[in-house]
Amino acid sequence: MTEFELIERVFRPLDGGRDDVAIGIGDDAAVLQLPSGHELVACVDTLVAGVHFPLDCSPFDIGWRAGATNLSDLAAMGAEPRWATLALTLPQADPQWLSAFAEGLAAVLRPWQVALVGGDTTRGPLTVSLQAMGSVPAGQALQRGGARVGDVVYVSGTLGDAAAGLQLLADPAPADSPQAFLRQRFLQPTPRLALGRALRGLASSCIDVSDGLLADAGHLASASELQICLRAAVLPQSAGLLACFDAATALRLAATGGDDYELCFTLPHAQSAKMPVLARELDCALTCIGVVREGSGLQLLAEDGTALAFDRSGYQHF
Amino acid sequence: MTEFELIERVFRPLDGGRDDVAIGIGDDAAVLQLPSGHELVACVDTLVAGVHFPLDCSPFDIGWRAGATNLSDLAAMGAEPRWATLALTLPQADPQWLSAFAEGLAAVLRPWQVALVGGDTTRGPLTVSLQAMGSVPAGQALQRGGARVGDVVYVSGTLGDAAAGLQLLADPAPADSPQAFLRQRFLQPTPRLALGRALRGLASSCIDVSDGLLADAGHLASASELQICLRAAVLPQSAGLLACFDAATALRLAATGGDDYELCFTLPHAQSAKMPVLARELDCALTCIGVVREGSGLQLLAEDGTALAFDRSGYQHF
Repeated sequence: MTEFELIERVFRPLDGGRDDVAIGIGDDAAVLQLPSGHELVACVDTLVAGVHFPLDCSPFDIGWRAGATNLSDLAAMGAEPRWATLALTLPQADPQWLSAFAEGLAAVLRPWQVALVGGDTTRGPLTVSLQAMGSVPAGQALQRGGARVGDVVYVSGTLGDAAAGLQLLADPAPADSPQAFLRQRFLQPTPRLALGRALRGLASSCIDVSDGLLADAGHLASASELQICLRAAVLPQSAGLLACFDAATALRLAATGGDDYELCFTLPHAQSAKMPVLARELDCALTCIGVVREGSGLQLLAEDGTALAFDRSGYQHF
Repeated sequence: MTEFELIERVFRPLDGGRDDVAIGIGDDAAVLQLPSGHELVACVDTLVAGVHFPLDCSPFDIGWRAGATNLSDLAAMGAEPRWATLALTLPQADPQWLSAFAEGLAAVLRPWQVALVGGDTTRGPLTVSLQAMGSVPAGQALQRGGARVGDVVYVSGTLGDAAAGLQLLADPAPADSPQAFLRQRFLQPTPRLALGRALRGLASSCIDVSDGLLADAGHLASASELQICLRAAVLPQSAGLLACFDAATALRLAATGGDDYELCFTLPHAQSAKMPVLARELDCALTCIGVVREGSGLQLLAEDGTALAFDRSGYQHF
C-alpha cells in the first residue's frame, strides 16, 4: 500500500453517511447538495503545531480540536454542519498517527453526521487546516452585528477552563481531578451547535469565544457599533477552575482566556425568560453577564462599578 | 495598525463584487447564496514552501499558483467558480509580502469574479491552503469516471511546459525567450474554466493535469474501469519546450511532468467534430491523444505500437 492509498483509506470512512453528497472524496472536487431555501455557511480554521497546540499533543486531540474549532464557527452562525474538507500538512505519513488523528476528527464530526468530502495531504511542517461547510435557512444566520441598546448579554458554559487547561497539560494529576477536567476542556472542546441553532430568530448577535471573552464580546460591540458592559462577578467559572487557581487568577482566565468555544450572544431583555428553559433542554449553562449600551467598546465592571482592566484582552492571531 | 488589521486590509478588497455573498470576511463564517437548481462544488489545495514552490518564489507567483491550482480543480468538474477561503500560515506578517501575494491571488480570481469570503491567518512555516467553491447545474458535474469504450481522449493546450519551467527557474534568459515562456507556465498557470464549462454534457470524463498526463489519464482509466491508450507522437508540445530540450526529454516531460493544469477528457467519437470549433472559440488547442478501450490502466504507445515506459509516472503527493 502506498502512502497515498493509506491516507485515502484512513479518511474515506468519514463520509457521514449523508445523502447530500453527490460526489465525495476521490474526484477533483466534491459535489454537494444544499437544501433549497438555505444559504451556505463556510469557514476555515488552521492549527499549527507548536502555535495552536503543543508539539507533544496526541494526534487524537489534534484531530478533535481541528474539528471542534471549525464546527464552533458554524455554531456561532446558527448553522447546521454538513461537510468538511481537510488540508493536512505532515512531516511523514505515519499510519498510527493518521489513524489516531482521523479518530479524533471523527469523534467530533460523527455526532453531527458531518462528511469529510475532500482534502489535500502534503509533506511539510505539521499544519491542520479544516474548512467546515453548513447551511442555514435563508436570512436566518446569526451575526456579530445586530445587538441593540438594552439587549442582555449571555454566555454558555463556563469560561477560562481551556486557558487553565493549557497551563496544566504537563500536570500529572489523575483522570478524575479538576486538573484533568481543565485539560480536557482545552484538548476536547464541545462546539455548541445545538445552542447556535436554537438561538436563530432569538439572539440579536452571536460569536464563539475562541480568543477570550473580552476580545470576542468586543467584536460583538464593534460590529454592532455599541458598547457592551459586562459584570466581572457573574462570569461563569467552573468548580475545576476555582479549585486550581486563586480567585484573581480565575477571573483573569475567565475574562481573557481563549479556546473555550462557548457562545457569547445578545438578545432582547424580554426573551431572557426563555433562557432557563433552553439551558435545561440543552443541558448547558446559560448565564446573563451584561448589557448592551450606547457607546463603543467593552467594559468589565467590578461590583462597586469600577472598570477592571487586564494586560491581555484575548488571543492575538499574529 | 496591528498585523491583524493589516491582513484584513490586504484581503478585504478581494470581494469579487458579487451579489451572492450575504456575509463575507469579518464574521465567524461566510454566508453564501447558491442559485437554486445548482449543486455546490468544493475543493482544497495546499502549497508548501520548498515542496510545491521554491523558497525564493515571489509572493505574487505564490498567490497566483494558489488560486490557479484550485480553480483548475473546479474547471475539471465543469463548475463555475464563485467563492474561496484562504488558510495562510506565515513566519511573519510582512506588509510588502502580503500585498504582493494578494495581488497575485487577485490576478487569478478577478477575471472570474471569485470572492475571497473568509480565511485564517496563522504564524508558522509558509503554507498556503486555498479552498475554492463553485456551482454546477444539478447532475451536470464532470467526473473522472464515465469514460466508455470507443471514446476518444483529448487534452487542452501543451504538456510538459510547467515541469520544464520548474527546471529553468534560475535560468537568466530574457523575458521573450522560450525559457521565460516555460517559467511562466510553471509560475502562472491558466485554469481552463471556460473549457470545463463548455464540456458539460459533452465530455464523458474529465480531470486536470496536475500530477502529469500519465498519472492523471490513469486516474480517468481507473475511475472508469477501462483502459486508456495514448499515442506518444501526438502529445502536444510547445515550441518553447522543443527549443529548450531534446525530443526524448521533451516527450518525457510532456508525458510525466506535473503542474500544467490543462484538462484531459474523454468524449464519444461522434462529438469529435465539435472540438475544432470549441478550440477556436476558446483560443485553446484541443488535441486528440488517444482512445478508451476494454481493459485497465494506461498505455503510452510509440508509432510502431510498442509500449513506452517512464520511471516516473507523475507527481506523487507523498
